[in-house]
Amino acid sequence: MAVRLIRDCSVLVVPETGEVTVAEHQDIEITEGAITAIRDTTPDAPVEGEVVDGTGLLAIPGLTNSHTHTPMVMFRGAAEDVSVEDWFNVRIWPMEVNLTPERVRVGARLACAEMLLSGVTAFVDHYFYADQIALAAQELGIRADIAPTYFSSSGAEGRAAAFDDVERILAMGDPRIRASLGPHSTYTVSEDDLRITADHARDRGLKVHLHVAENMDQTRSSLDRLGVTPIQVAERTGVLDAGTVIAHGCGITAPDIDILAGYADRTGVASCPKGYFKHALDPITPVKPLLDAGVTVGAGTDGAASNNTLDVLEAMQFIALGTKQQEHDALAVTTSDVLRIGTRGGSRLTGLGDRTGALEVGRRADIVLVDLSGVHCRPVHDPRAALLYSVRSTSDVHSVLVDGELVVADRQLLTYDLGEILTDADAIAADLVDLSRGGSIQNYAP
Amino acid sequence: MAVRLIRDCSVLVVPETGEVTVAEHQDIEITEGAITAIRDTTPDAPVEGEVVDGTGLLAIPGLTNSHTHTPMVMFRGAAEDVSVEDWFNVRIWPMEVNLTPERVRVGARLACAEMLLSGVTAFVDHYFYADQIALAAQELGIRADIAPTYFSSSGAEGRAAAFDDVERILAMGDPRIRASLGPHSTYTVSEDDLRITADHARDRGLKVHLHVAENMDQTRSSLDRLGVTPIQVAERTGVLDAGTVIAHGCGITAPDIDILAGYADRTGVASCPKGYFKHALDPITPVKPLLDAGVTVGAGTDGAASNNTLDVLEAMQFIALGTKQQEHDALAVTTSDVLRIGTRGGSRLTGLGDRTGALEVGRRADIVLVDLSGVHCRPVHDPRAALLYSVRSTSDVHSVLVDGELVVADRQLLTYDLGEILTDADAIAADLVDLSRGGSIQNYAP
Repeated sequence: MAVRLIRDCSVLVVPETGEVTVAEHQDIEITEGAITAIRDTTPDAPVEGEVVDGTGLLAIPGLTNSHTHTPMVMFRGAAEDVSVEDWFNVRIWPMEVNLTPERVRVGARLACAEMLLSGVTAFVDHYFYADQIALAAQELGIRADIAPTYFSSSGAEGRAAAFDDVERILAMGDPRIRASLGPHSTYTVSEDDLRITADHARDRGLKVHLHVAENMDQTRSSLDRLGVTPIQVAERTGVLDAGTVIAHGCGITAPDIDILAGYADRTGVASCPKGYFKHALDPITPVKPLLDAGVTVGAGTDGAASNNTLDVLEAMQFIALGTKQQEHDALAVTTSDVLRIGTRGGSRLTGLGDRTGALEVGRRADIVLVDLSGVHCRPVHDPRAALLYSVRSTSDVHSVLVDGELVVADRQLLTYDLGEILTDADAIAADLVDLSRGGSIQNYAP
Repeated sequence: MAVRLIRDCSVLVVPETGEVTVAEHQDIEITEGAITAIRDTTPDAPVEGEVVDGTGLLAIPGLTNSHTHTPMVMFRGAAEDVSVEDWFNVRIWPMEVNLTPERVRVGARLACAEMLLSGVTAFVDHYFYADQIALAAQELGIRADIAPTYFSSSGAEGRAAAFDDVERILAMGDPRIRASLGPHSTYTVSEDDLRITADHARDRGLKVHLHVAENMDQTRSSLDRLGVTPIQVAERTGVLDAGTVIAHGCGITAPDIDILAGYADRTGVASCPKGYFKHALDPITPVKPLLDAGVTVGAGTDGAASNNTLDVLEAMQFIALGTKQQEHDALAVTTSDVLRIGTRGGSRLTGLGDRTGALEVGRRADIVLVDLSGVHCRPVHDPRAALLYSVRSTSDVHSVLVDGELVVADRQLLTYDLGEILTDADAIAADLVDLSRGGSIQNYAP
């Protein structure tokens, strides 16, 4: 349903820099999916078209999940209390032999439903059978940038097939659905393949999305084997220059940050901290030094196989808390800084910095209405702090618009039958974690 | 409403040691507030008395908030992005000059509502006007152990008044409401006063509850000034021997843990990690070494002025994640370990280890029914992991019993008008954070 006006909401104003503020009693006017006015409310003015009542609700820019593997929601809870090595080699990569296009589609639908219901209006994905993810995103009406994953172990055909998947997604012609190139990582993809990928990205005007320096062990291993860091590998293969979403980056060093600063207009880092804590990574992404160097940072959830949710508000809280502790400074990042990361940061990271990520005239109407009236948010001395530290997305995200279309209203998904999604997921859940087929899609030895 | 039977629920079985398991399709029989049977469900057996339908729900032991200051919920969001020092000296202690008995009662009601609705059936409090907190707890039907706070700066009268408040709470004669002695901390209460308190605790058969070694700076300062750690101060004043809830303990050293092990039958530690991250504390409570030494650990939220919620499930997640990272070991604590901390741990810490904290015949019926059917928990490969890492208490806590009484049903508070609680809180919120009166209740200089 196309919305024409959100009436009498509060509006979270997230500037490029400086403090986030809240404007009260505003009307947001939407025309053909774009925000065309934000002004003091006029309760009795007649409106042609659909009106959403924003009374008592806080309108925030739709959140971007800056790095995820949506179909892995099917493995949620199936790899607990394991090391990083065992997570890959004993659980997840052996389970992923069970993937099929149909199963990926079912998982992606479940993930898109979870994200929309928790206020995520865009996601940046990296996975297999990526065209199926694109179709699921289209079905549910969520914005997406999807990178078909490939390893060098699959040879030139594997790489070509992933590039073909990109073309298939682009051919859908859906303005909400974009594609990027998805080499898995600097440790599973050869430098030759990374070079080919970077060249292809520049030729086609696409971005790259890959795992780099996921943890400090990988950085140490790279230095031992190659004499350079993973970020330096990404630089010398042209990946940073092509414009890239770097997933994780917990192993980014101080000299790496200087390198990244040189590509800051087109390359940034997606931090997904919940999983870092769960897998005992120390340090986590150096968010504060990256921000200080002008590098864009987005908030992500990684897959639910490690993160257990696709909740970007939760990821933002972890970025705030983890960064304050890591920097030994309670003011290392402020509430405003982290609200900016989850909104403008995610949009900028995916090349949508001028189209989404803020509630401003001319931008697409990706808007989340949040209800701060729950007992766990009261009294509301500071709605920004409530949003970051008290809100629970599953109870407090009230309504969601993507491109001006209402996709969640009064906490209900409008675009797809949620019961059907859950039934389909339950039907394949046991088969996906079944290890009886043997084999593995890859071996973790960075 | 007294419940006689919860029919056909799953039951979270939390043993003293080893793995937590789930028993499916169980009936829980309750007689006069105690669990009298847990058995395979018999759908058609007639029941005399109230039956709660547990179909599709997971029954877990009621959670204990092992350290909090409930009325501080009124300061939620009013002290953000500040250092520990400024949190105390610039924000909170100057705001607390605005406390009155009536305002404490209003705040405590709000806090009790938030806790019950998020599955917390007992809380361990430490605050001023403690008798008002006890009355609020009684009104809402939640179990409580409340320690009236005092500083040595208030002199012998201050200490005596706090001891009198304890007697006033005990005189209520409510089996759900207990009292402990509440010297504020080892850095704001003199060793003489701590000795008097420990003696009084032993005489009256009460526990002590105080802040010790909240961070490593306090431990260093204590070593500089006194040549001993805060834990050693608590030992030499008899506080550990009296039986004590130690709040925080982030500054507990390895030798301290050996000391604590000697009092493990009556003294333990409440860890409230969200606030530690927020205030950039490193290290956090050494949960893993404490558990290894046999010391009881409970999960707490501290006050909402630092923690922003009173959500014990959230605190448990932070204990799991923070401990894994701090120990550089993804297996440092398991899902089972942390589920045990939030249930049995909290009960044992407050001397209720044989009466609550587990769903076993003979224990009081403090039971929470959790709904794992939400999209953010699906598929449910492991209900224990779902509980720790995916559940959101505000949407997923379905029903709550305390002492066999239904206090929350279908996500609604039954014992008090929630609208009235919220209206009362909003009415005084601005006055509580008003700094125009000047002054402060204390100065932070540990």
